[in-house]
Amino acid sequence: MFTINHLFITLKANIGQDEDFDAAQKKAEKLGAKKVFIEDLRSEFVQEFIWPAVQANAVYEDRYLLGTSIARPCIARRQVQIARQERAQYVSHGATGKGNDQVRFELTCYALYPQVQIIAPWRIPEFYSRFRGRKDLMEYAEKHGIPVPVTPKAPWSMDANLMHISYESGILENPKNHAPSDLYQMTKNPEDSPSEPDVLEIDFAKGVPVRVTHVKEGTSKDTPLELFCYLNEIGGKHGVGRIDIVENRFIGMKSRGIYETPGGTVLLHAHLDIETFTMDREVRKIKQSLGIKFSELIYNGFWYSPECEFVRHCIDKSQENVEGRVQLSVFKGQVYILGRESPKSLYNEELVSMDVQGDYDPCDASGFIKINAVRLREHNRLQGATQKKL
Amino acid sequence: MFTINHLFITLKANIGQDEDFDAAQKKAEKLGAKKVFIEDLRSEFVQEFIWPAVQANAVYEDRYLLGTSIARPCIARRQVQIARQERAQYVSHGATGKGNDQVRFELTCYALYPQVQIIAPWRIPEFYSRFRGRKDLMEYAEKHGIPVPVTPKAPWSMDANLMHISYESGILENPKNHAPSDLYQMTKNPEDSPSEPDVLEIDFAKGVPVRVTHVKEGTSKDTPLELFCYLNEIGGKHGVGRIDIVENRFIGMKSRGIYETPGGTVLLHAHLDIETFTMDREVRKIKQSLGIKFSELIYNGFWYSPECEFVRHCIDKSQENVEGRVQLSVFKGQVYILGRESPKSLYNEELVSMDVQGDYDPCDASGFIKINAVRLREHNRLQGATQKKL
Amino acid sequence: MFTINHLFITLKANIGQDEDFDAAQKKAEKLGAKKVFIEDLRSEFVQEFIWPAVQANAVYEDRYLLGTSIARPCIARRQVQIARQERAQYVSHGATGKGNDQVRFELTCYALYPQVQIIAPWRIPEFYSRFRGRKDLMEYAEKHGIPVPVTPKAPWSMDANLMHISYESGILENPKNHAPSDLYQMTKNPEDSPSEPDVLEIDFAKGVPVRVTHVKEGTSKDTPLELFCYLNEIGGKHGVGRIDIVENRFIGMKSRGIYETPGGTVLLHAHLDIETFTMDREVRKIKQSLGIKFSELIYNGFWYSPECEFVRHCIDKSQENVEGRVQLSVFKGQVYILGRESPKSLYNEELVSMDVQGDYDPCDASGFIKINAVRLREHNRLQGATQKKL
Amino acid sequence: MFTINHLFITLKANIGQDEDFDAAQKKAEKLGAKKVFIEDLRSEFVQEFIWPAVQANAVYEDRYLLGTSIARPCIARRQVQIARQERAQYVSHGATGKGNDQVRFELTCYALYPQVQIIAPWRIPEFYSRFRGRKDLMEYAEKHGIPVPVTPKAPWSMDANLMHISYESGILENPKNHAPSDLYQMTKNPEDSPSEPDVLEIDFAKGVPVRVTHVKEGTSKDTPLELFCYLNEIGGKHGVGRIDIVENRFIGMKSRGIYETPGGTVLLHAHLDIETFTMDREVRKIKQSLGIKFSELIYNGFWYSPECEFVRHCIDKSQENVEGRVQLSVFKGQVYILGRESPKSLYNEELVSMDVQGDYDPCDASGFIKINAVRLREHNRLQGATQKKL
Repeated sequence: MFTINHLFITLKANIGQDEDFDAAQKKAEKLGAKKVFIEDLRSEFVQEFIWPAVQANAVYEDRYLLGTSIARPCIARRQVQIARQERAQYVSHGATGKGNDQVRFELTCYALYPQVQIIAPWRIPEFYSRFRGRKDLMEYAEKHGIPVPVTPKAPWSMDANLMHISYESGILENPKNHAPSDLYQMTKNPEDSPSEPDVLEIDFAKGVPVRVTHVKEGTSKDTPLELFCYLNEIGGKHGVGRIDIVENRFIGMKSRGIYETPGGTVLLHAHLDIETFTMDREVRKIKQSLGIKFSELIYNGFWYSPECEFVRHCIDKSQENVEGRVQLSVFKGQVYILGRESPKSLYNEELVSMDVQGDYDPCDASGFIKINAVRLREHNRLQGATQKKL
Repeated sequence: MFTINHLFITLKANIGQDEDFDAAQKKAEKLGAKKVFIEDLRSEFVQEFIWPAVQANAVYEDRYLLGTSIARPCIARRQVQIARQERAQYVSHGATGKGNDQVRFELTCYALYPQVQIIAPWRIPEFYSRFRGRKDLMEYAEKHGIPVPVTPKAPWSMDANLMHISYESGILENPKNHAPSDLYQMTKNPEDSPSEPDVLEIDFAKGVPVRVTHVKEGTSKDTPLELFCYLNEIGGKHGVGRIDIVENRFIGMKSRGIYETPGGTVLLHAHLDIETFTMDREVRKIKQSLGIKFSELIYNGFWYSPECEFVRHCIDKSQENVEGRVQLSVFKGQVYILGRESPKSLYNEELVSMDVQGDYDPCDASGFIKINAVRLREHNRLQGATQKKL
Repeated sequence: MFTINHLFITLKANIGQDEDFDAAQKKAEKLGAKKVFIEDLRSEFVQEFIWPAVQANAVYEDRYLLGTSIARPCIARRQVQIARQERAQYVSHGATGKGNDQVRFELTCYALYPQVQIIAPWRIPEFYSRFRGRKDLMEYAEKHGIPVPVTPKAPWSMDANLMHISYESGILENPKNHAPSDLYQMTKNPEDSPSEPDVLEIDFAKGVPVRVTHVKEGTSKDTPLELFCYLNEIGGKHGVGRIDIVENRFIGMKSRGIYETPGGTVLLHAHLDIETFTMDREVRKIKQSLGIKFSELIYNGFWYSPECEFVRHCIDKSQENVEGRVQLSVFKGQVYILGRESPKSLYNEELVSMDVQGDYDPCDASGFIKINAVRLREHNRLQGATQKKL
Repeated sequence: MFTINHLFITLKANIGQDEDFDAAQKKAEKLGAKKVFIEDLRSEFVQEFIWPAVQANAVYEDRYLLGTSIARPCIARRQVQIARQERAQYVSHGATGKGNDQVRFELTCYALYPQVQIIAPWRIPEFYSRFRGRKDLMEYAEKHGIPVPVTPKAPWSMDANLMHISYESGILENPKNHAPSDLYQMTKNPEDSPSEPDVLEIDFAKGVPVRVTHVKEGTSKDTPLELFCYLNEIGGKHGVGRIDIVENRFIGMKSRGIYETPGGTVLLHAHLDIETFTMDREVRKIKQSLGIKFSELIYNGFWYSPECEFVRHCIDKSQENVEGRVQLSVFKGQVYILGRESPKSLYNEELVSMDVQGDYDPCDASGFIKINAVRLREHNRLQGATQKKL
């Protein structure tokens, strides 16, 4: 039989989820925790985890903005800091044995505290055989005086933080089932959202937002946490950032997830825009592939790994000139870029103009095309394939 | 002085743009064309150009769906076929000397007809020095009896086909200027679009749509051209697929373009969904990078190149099992995936379920994580960097 | 305590190693095997495993030619075929718990026979605690009448097949220690190898060697197995293909290995040469990255995986025109390409000639360069970085 | 008719080629140069160009070590510095119109001095029509008193610097022709090279060699230029670094080149070894692809480009821990790694040992393999492909 160590410390990380932290504190004390840590990690979550994801345009499998994935190393890092400081030799978490989060938590722990031992109850046969469902857990809690929510839980699982809320499992496991319309908590249903857009200006420096201004209202936010919360508010009000996807977990199975990422989605659009405006084409291409790699590393739990540190450094380097202002409109679930300007712009209005020649000789293009065609003409000639193709 | 060859043949390709082809025929005849070809290329444009782009999730620089880029090789191929058939040694086009289209047209010509000579007036100094603006051209046309539109042209340049309409130049050259709200022709302004979504089912086989059904109305389309036009209609009605971007041209400058791609945008969402549902994770990763390469090749004009043929073949191979049905909702400029099903799905509801164990032992995850951590723990131990990191 | 199932079947795969297969048969019978399979897999090893590696220029981490890695799926496939045919529910192998081979064997088994159970004694605590070294095993064998070699084993571990012999462990575990000069068995020490080169001609079709001719002697080989053995003979005679490397195992640790791959090394040089001669530059670039991916997949044990099948297909497609003859010299540990010819060559002597103009206008290069410089000049101008750089 | 500007400045860059610089000075003066610059760029060539190539393991198309490619930006940079300093508005070079060097020179010029005008006589029709071969040039030189070498030139073209000598054109243009044995100037024919190896130790720091020691003789070199020259001497003495390849030029044609790169080849082997020893596996993978990109950029002339600067920065970052000592033997055209050691090694002898368990539980590997197999088993089950495969 599995027994809980009687000397334990609890950590509740505040990364922006809607939760009663006082109740959490009391519950932990009641259960006999030696120490109880309630930690507000919101600012470091924004600056050290969300910002690098923004710089990278981090998207997993073309769609998922990694809201849960980037939160895990933030929480686990704090957990490990406390474990070291309190000379704890074991850390534990409640992630299931089929998911990605167990990997993300534990790789962070091993990377930062290689000697640590990890207790993952949902992978201990004695535990998961004993508690086969919600009912078993409820009975156990009642019997042992562990306070639990009395309202029936929604028929799905949820993970919330500043960046997003994810919904999965339960009735969502059938990938054909539509998500119920009352599922979303961060974003308004676009059918019910305002019938007028909000227009924002976002200022970037080094690839990171430094100020958001509501054009009409003239208000602005410029600390990372406030700024990001404000984007969540505006994005959420207009129903921005809802997706329903099937994704590939690191452990090899496909899962279905529904996500809402209002502020992150606004920033993705804005950052993509200012980045292309200020970054050389070929740098962008290389950086794009580093961003895809970065996203995959984050998803798989390798935030604290030599390769992720390396990639993060390279991406950060690429952002040196990603600076300027993007104007955009948020409306009915969508973000529309309206215009952009930058002191570091590589856009040259005169050079590109159809009306002005600028420092450009059209004749050069003939040579450019002819030389690019050398290889194609050779291929044609030598394969003798012309007839077949036409 | 530049003189026009008096023996010339004209080609007007119908690739879905809104144009008076009879008038074009008459104009060409009036100008003395030896032969006039008005060719309906819409079906081949959909099947041979748009479909491969759909299979590839082709997007240039994360945003542009390549509507103009894929049309160019389709037109140029026909032009070259006619040139060969009519024993013409020269081909000509009206693309400017600063753009991508000159490259796309000409690389196609050289690839398929290596001996051809190309006349590009906008790169001939005598021509572009003589005609410095719209006014010069108008006067010339009037003087020589060449019919031209009398209504004043919009203060920007436009390119239209089945896939999209692009807008650039003129007042849009200032990247800070907002696009006027009356600019768009294929899509309704989301502010004025219907307040109820349309729900569609799209069936795919081998990565290509084979049927679209309007769930409520029960109507469906299943030939490529009709199907695609129907998606344009529904997407357009709901204002789907508008973007305003700065992009990097092949010839090295940045340009600002505004695009509307209603049907293509709906298909991109639907294909991404069914693809992830039926394709192995690691195949997907390799295919994703091939898709990015493919997009770049198309953008740069290399549709007819050995590498593009190779990549197209590989992508096509990857689509063998991309089959199934996606249900989605189109509303206010956005496409929402609602659910999906497939006989070729790699999604395993039992395996992923939080409630059922399936053929999966959670204990295996412990070993998986520990082995993945070997490298990370080594890195930590050997760099002695633990303290610094925490 | 660990017990051996009394009903067991043995497989000894002949993949070219120097071994007494009769003795192996007798030993298996003596131990009570229900059935004994001695299978000559050499031809299929060459054609189905070595040839694709040749097409791919498969090299792991820039140096290792994957001689062991490609043999594992070949053996495991046969093992699984026999297991299915004989309705065995368990398969077993003797690979250690720290190496790559356990992964390669088992992933192949799971991929081809998902229901199979695998017994890996070196990962069973009762087994590896019981047998802590060679001495324990020897005593056990003696006690139970299991025939074992009496000559003292070399102080390292060895794996041999047609493609290569690898040496690792024991005294080689210290990465600073030099390999003893008497270690190598397939290749002669270059210090003692002939003082005259052998010159060979290798003919390729579809990226695979179809004939090897010894130019001076006029002899030739043209069946895959004979051809490859002959290249081993010539390569071995001249000491070709010895490397001493540290590599990264899939399970996360670095290991030191010494390899000799005579025939494979000759083929790598020859294939690289004929491939570049007949393959378009841009196709080559894409294929190169697929080859690196392929090598990594093979090394990690994913030969039988959807992604490896996909990559193999793509690489095979790229080899359609890789045809022609390479002349090379083998001498003192090195392979020197001397010349090449091909009916499918994309080399155009007239086009490239310094003495003849061919179908090429040097003026085009000016435009090509100027257009390529557009981006660079913009970068300079806009960064105002000129002074700093110079 | 083409006329030479009478006010001209000459630059002769010493990048290690064997040349009479005094004669060059006199010749330039005799021809009336306003100023004559003879610049010793050898040290900066080694440190700023060869070293980054070593860090990157820079190899173009799997074989070419880029000896000419990296010299061009070094020379052109100096040329541009002088042009700016002397307020010259034009620069000129003698590269042909079909080669890569024109691109490399000119892209460097445009990148560093965007306003410069370039005169490339071999692309000016009046020039190349007037001088159709060597004979025309000789006659012209004689007539105008321009001193030229009297000894008949070899029937091929040559480019020499510290890094390598390349040979191409003339009788080498037929790709089937063997290179004459007396062609090579930097390396001894391996058939005539010493029958005893030289054993060297190379110390690296940050991915760059900082000391070379001849083990037997006890001598060592530790300044970049001396060190590199010494490696050339030892490599050359043993005939190391000869290759005969067909490569793909940037302008689209294939060319045949013969190269000898003695010191560079020794360093490539040594650096590959120490790098894998000290660099994390996954960092290495990302860095490998950056190195391939870097090589391509160098080859194509983009040393001074935003993307090359970015890649160089990233590669440099990856080299932080690439430190340690490699022992190797140089013999008969080949480099053999004998052993390596490093204070930054990620190799863990205890962890990898077959004889010691270390901090590693073999049971973890079972879980690792099972989880990696999840995807493969799913693929098998769902494709129902088992029978077909076996």
